[in-house]
Amino acid sequence: MSAIKIKGATIFTMVRGEAPYEGDIFIRDSRIASIGPSIAEEAEETLDGRGMLAMPGLVNAHQHSPMSLLRAFSDDLKLMDWLERKMLPAENRMTPEDIYWGAKLGIAEMIKSGTTAFADMYIHMNEIAEAVKETGIRASLTRGVIGLEDDGGRRMGEAADLIDRWHGQADGRITTMVGPHAPYTCPPHFMKEALALAADKGVPVHTHLAETVEETAKIREKYNRTPTEYLADTGLLSHDHILLAHGVHLTPEDIKLLGGIKGGMAHNPVSNLKLACGIAPVAELLKQGTTVGLGTDGAGSATTLDMFEEIKATAWLQKLRSGNPASFTAGEALAMATAGGAELLGLRGEIGTLEAGKKADIILIDLRKPHLQPVHHAESLLAYSVGGADVDTTIVNGCILMQGRRLLTMDEEEILRETAVRARRITAGI
Amino acid sequence: MSAIKIKGATIFTMVRGEAPYEGDIFIRDSRIASIGPSIAEEAEETLDGRGMLAMPGLVNAHQHSPMSLLRAFSDDLKLMDWLERKMLPAENRMTPEDIYWGAKLGIAEMIKSGTTAFADMYIHMNEIAEAVKETGIRASLTRGVIGLEDDGGRRMGEAADLIDRWHGQADGRITTMVGPHAPYTCPPHFMKEALALAADKGVPVHTHLAETVEETAKIREKYNRTPTEYLADTGLLSHDHILLAHGVHLTPEDIKLLGGIKGGMAHNPVSNLKLACGIAPVAELLKQGTTVGLGTDGAGSATTLDMFEEIKATAWLQKLRSGNPASFTAGEALAMATAGGAELLGLRGEIGTLEAGKKADIILIDLRKPHLQPVHHAESLLAYSVGGADVDTTIVNGCILMQGRRLLTMDEEEILRETAVRARRITAGI
Repeated sequence: MSAIKIKGATIFTMVRGEAPYEGDIFIRDSRIASIGPSIAEEAEETLDGRGMLAMPGLVNAHQHSPMSLLRAFSDDLKLMDWLERKMLPAENRMTPEDIYWGAKLGIAEMIKSGTTAFADMYIHMNEIAEAVKETGIRASLTRGVIGLEDDGGRRMGEAADLIDRWHGQADGRITTMVGPHAPYTCPPHFMKEALALAADKGVPVHTHLAETVEETAKIREKYNRTPTEYLADTGLLSHDHILLAHGVHLTPEDIKLLGGIKGGMAHNPVSNLKLACGIAPVAELLKQGTTVGLGTDGAGSATTLDMFEEIKATAWLQKLRSGNPASFTAGEALAMATAGGAELLGLRGEIGTLEAGKKADIILIDLRKPHLQPVHHAESLLAYSVGGADVDTTIVNGCILMQGRRLLTMDEEEILRETAVRARRITAGI
Repeated sequence: MSAIKIKGATIFTMVRGEAPYEGDIFIRDSRIASIGPSIAEEAEETLDGRGMLAMPGLVNAHQHSPMSLLRAFSDDLKLMDWLERKMLPAENRMTPEDIYWGAKLGIAEMIKSGTTAFADMYIHMNEIAEAVKETGIRASLTRGVIGLEDDGGRRMGEAADLIDRWHGQADGRITTMVGPHAPYTCPPHFMKEALALAADKGVPVHTHLAETVEETAKIREKYNRTPTEYLADTGLLSHDHILLAHGVHLTPEDIKLLGGIKGGMAHNPVSNLKLACGIAPVAELLKQGTTVGLGTDGAGSATTLDMFEEIKATAWLQKLRSGNPASFTAGEALAMATAGGAELLGLRGEIGTLEAGKKADIILIDLRKPHLQPVHHAESLLAYSVGGADVDTTIVNGCILMQGRRLLTMDEEEILRETAVRARRITAGI
């Protein structure tokens, strides 16, 4: 039995209604054993929490981690130029080894900016799973499948293999989903096939929804439906658990339909801004009872995987949309990045808040900095001034993955060296 | 004669058309003596630039630095509740010593996030000037004056005293402006009085313009004018140099009027988002020939003084507004935060780009981090992934103010201690 004690930190459990307080956290193996103002029990390892704020690790609810190789490769282009002229040709050159190193680069950035769990949809998922296993982070992995090409069968086979091989592995840190890519890339029969696989395996579905105006027009033309109605027609919205990404372009009727789903919506405001997609109607979704989490999308669009940027952007944009600064609070944005994401990954009972019995996915934020003082309201600081670089310590499943900003399970220099060479090769001449 | 050499850095001069290159910078006294691929001359002090990117220091073109004491004190409130119930009562309790320490806290945050010059409008400006003098940063200082109260005379006297006492002081790092607060707080006779003072002293005017819908309605009701037309009527827009803050609510006619000004507009997107003011028509202003710089506004509204947040928000919002991700580039946002701000502070010939003969206001950004690799395009990384915490070294006027993230001219612990106590006292019971 290994035990870690965090002593004398400002503890922000993010349990609804609980204000931050000074106290201790006792971790035994992978879980929080106790948490409160003062814990007498001694542990093998004690972390000095003075000046630090302990909060639940952030959950990145929508990601394509190997796209970190394409960070800052192709910005300020129109969406289709970005996708077809830059992203797809580069992605086509990626080997499984590139995927592995790209995932490690993304995971390194996530751990260093306080993300403790993420949902990933990509290809060569075995390599991503290996990276997750090695590095100690928590992830929900999805093989993205597209129904427009003739190898849909092989891809769906890979999706099934991923689940069989990896679901519940790495001390339970890895879970899986089935990932029909999006309404505009998956015809009805293919959506239903994916849904059947998810139902058969007992796992959630992860898909993109209504990211762009173009997508909405395409589905309207083809099916005389909104993308949301299209998903409802295929039966996907009635699945036991569905993780939808984006949801920028939704009608009031779509929002009502989404009020009934189990799972929820991953909001990716930075990517949506950078690709000029628009502002998702987050406040309306929340009002309708839909759970909303936050994601970064891939670094190919967002550039950064820092979830604190998503938290800021979420609160800013909902205030802007309503014209009322009181309409959306720091606390709401923070809850989306923690408990909201936990729900989207199907891990509500396990992560998302700091409570005895939950998994020890905890970050310590060093508040002893000019931009984080004075501490009038910790929530406001966390939502509006903290950045990923303020995370001092990252703990996942009771293991310390970063301490004093040093990665403990990864060789950071090796990752930067490997990915620099691979990124050059992948993008040469594109 | 003191000399510093930065050796082997990626140099991003931000001179239009110049791409980043590997090279050296030689600083003699307060200026860049030479800059290029390789400089043979040796200096007393050499900074190892390997892995670092050298760029012009950022210019925060609109700030109220002592409001750092009120950071995260009052968020998520309606603008008038925020102002009248929280900010003004707290500000009324601030002593000159509070202002001094609040300014030091703001300056510490600015230096640590790569800001080398700022424009400040506040009260008790002598204390802010002392803080600027001591800490080594560059600033344009303005005593804000309001014409609605009976002590306008005293305040205008303080504004004149500030100019007489401080303009050109601290090795030329301090310059001054005259600051009639805003159209809605300054009647025409008072605006003209302020303008006469500025003309008499030969300094620019710094004022707020069209930040909120409410302000626009108020000026319409009182003068049947837009705030911009009102400023034009008073003669302010014809002054030799005018620094306007915000400019969120502008008509096409307003934008035309502003095309002719000398000086320019300070865009404060984060504050505008947090107070739900709207998105300023930055692209239109630039098209009309108006110089646009970036500012944070006070930490009381923006929470953070990190100019990299303003750079991100600027690019994101202009893309969102136009619906076209190609409509506004990383480079444009970066230029606003450097050369644009330099122009707004009246320092175009002195700062804003890295060129031999210019003042040595330089920041070094450490790129050896997972979120800043690989380096496909430095501009994209700088605009979309770099944060203030990535700044390793800050140089102003040829003096190193921060190295390895350690402040060299300030006692950071003392500042955090002093400001914590003062912030508690100022806000108690409010």
